[in-house]
Amino acid sequence: MAILVVGSVALDSVKTPFGDRKEALGGSATFFSYSASFFHPVNLVGVVGEDFPEEHIGLLNGKGIDTAGLKAIPGGKTFRWEGYYDYDLNEAHTLSTCLNVFDVFQPELPDSYRDSEYVFLANIDPELQIHVLDQVRAPKLKVCDTMNFWIEGKRDKLIELLGKVDIITLNDAEARQLTGEPNLVKAARKIISWGPEHVVIKKGEHGALLFSGDGVFSAPALPIEEIYDPTGAGDTFAGGFVGYLAREGTLDEATLRRAMIYGSVMASFNVEDFSLDRMKRLGAGEIEERFGRFIELVKFD
Amino acid sequence: MAILVVGSVALDSVKTPFGDRKEALGGSATFFSYSASFFHPVNLVGVVGEDFPEEHIGLLNGKGIDTAGLKAIPGGKTFRWEGYYDYDLNEAHTLSTCLNVFDVFQPELPDSYRDSEYVFLANIDPELQIHVLDQVRAPKLKVCDTMNFWIEGKRDKLIELLGKVDIITLNDAEARQLTGEPNLVKAARKIISWGPEHVVIKKGEHGALLFSGDGVFSAPALPIEEIYDPTGAGDTFAGGFVGYLAREGTLDEATLRRAMIYGSVMASFNVEDFSLDRMKRLGAGEIEERFGRFIELVKFD
Repeated sequence: MAILVVGSVALDSVKTPFGDRKEALGGSATFFSYSASFFHPVNLVGVVGEDFPEEHIGLLNGKGIDTAGLKAIPGGKTFRWEGYYDYDLNEAHTLSTCLNVFDVFQPELPDSYRDSEYVFLANIDPELQIHVLDQVRAPKLKVCDTMNFWIEGKRDKLIELLGKVDIITLNDAEARQLTGEPNLVKAARKIISWGPEHVVIKKGEHGALLFSGDGVFSAPALPIEEIYDPTGAGDTFAGGFVGYLAREGTLDEATLRRAMIYGSVMASFNVEDFSLDRMKRLGAGEIEERFGRFIELVKFD
Repeated sequence: MAILVVGSVALDSVKTPFGDRKEALGGSATFFSYSASFFHPVNLVGVVGEDFPEEHIGLLNGKGIDTAGLKAIPGGKTFRWEGYYDYDLNEAHTLSTCLNVFDVFQPELPDSYRDSEYVFLANIDPELQIHVLDQVRAPKLKVCDTMNFWIEGKRDKLIELLGKVDIITLNDAEARQLTGEPNLVKAARKIISWGPEHVVIKKGEHGALLFSGDGVFSAPALPIEEIYDPTGAGDTFAGGFVGYLAREGTLDEATLRRAMIYGSVMASFNVEDFSLDRMKRLGAGEIEERFGRFIELVKFD
């Protein structure tokens, strides 16, 4: 059964010190799907406008991503995000966000999607994330993401959602904001007390942490010489993470740790070019080779 | 032969969100020595005033740290630093720095120190670091540290020093400032092109990177729930790093990697209390136990 993802499909205009792109394919569900598709089939639920280029649909379908759940609104305009990064590529500066068709998005799952076992609720309104979960019959793993906007505006709904998911992925600033705890260990413990069995804290160029009960795993980030565009790195990480778990079909600690590394591997490719440009050139052999580089990166005894 | 360290011995007044200390024992040579002494004897070169408490000397001597090279200036006042940390414990805010006797410090090595094989030049004027190196007959490993103040004010001398050392330890902001390179990989490569065979970039709560030729090793930081005071963490790291190398007597890649972890282990203890308070309670068994926690922290296959 394919992985179910619900999230944004967008046209991103991005500028970094290394170049820029106008209205390139982006969005949390896009980055997640493309990354996960290297490991497992994906069913995508989202919404676009009439202006959404047909070629993007073809690109996703060509990777085994089912877009029966991607609704195109006649006369509507696709969600657009515009932003830039300075040399500190960890921080995105938003210039404009036009929700367009995303503003009235009510995700309804095609019946064939309701038996999904692996579910990723990308960064959308927690009310919608709950609404999606309610439509899935017997999920085996429920993972959600979130962002500062929902932490500020829909904190109660978000905490309600946390009672229903197995894993949340969020970045370090979001973990601190959500819990009011400057210390990441305490922040993770507090989030776990609200429901999820595991918390994944993404730290950009500093790697990611997996908290499970009392345990913690530190996944490094690969030091990369040429980072062109970090947009979508977090969702690409989640795609590798959930994609690998779905492919393996087990959720023990060793598998979760390898999934963290596969997530980091996929994110390390994504930042090497704009939009999905690096991912489009990516081969399975490169993924395994880079997994080997992660082993070398942290090896000691 | 004992490790030679040259650097500051200070009285620190520190405030963090978790408490404060007035005129507690500090200084780069102090933190380095105390940490290194768990692995290997240390010869300390520095300067203090007449006001320096005798008990501090006793504390150092009790750990096998030779203080024949610690000069006490009659009528002089000991170097003092005053600062605070907010919840972002990665950044020290300096309130005052009184160099006092340190202002006219001219490190002269006792003859018995001149045969030192392992040398750590803590964060002092690069002219003095070079002056010390010139007095050592046949060093096997020369490691230096530095800081923003010398990068700004004595950049040429610092780069001259880099042509004479094997390893430099510095933090990520300093590496960027020294090289003008926002990317850490490029920054490390540039520093290596100036002389050192290895560059250690310390990233506080995000761990540390060891660059060697084309290779890189990522040492994690232990996620710690109770960080009381990060003062001296970098020098404590260096103490564990150089101390372990001196104890092992080899400099191959595997030993260097383990040394990075021992450095991280020692730093992880140092931040758990003010000044040397945690280190004073530290036992060898705890060091090995925490080394084991670092193995668990990054283990995957």
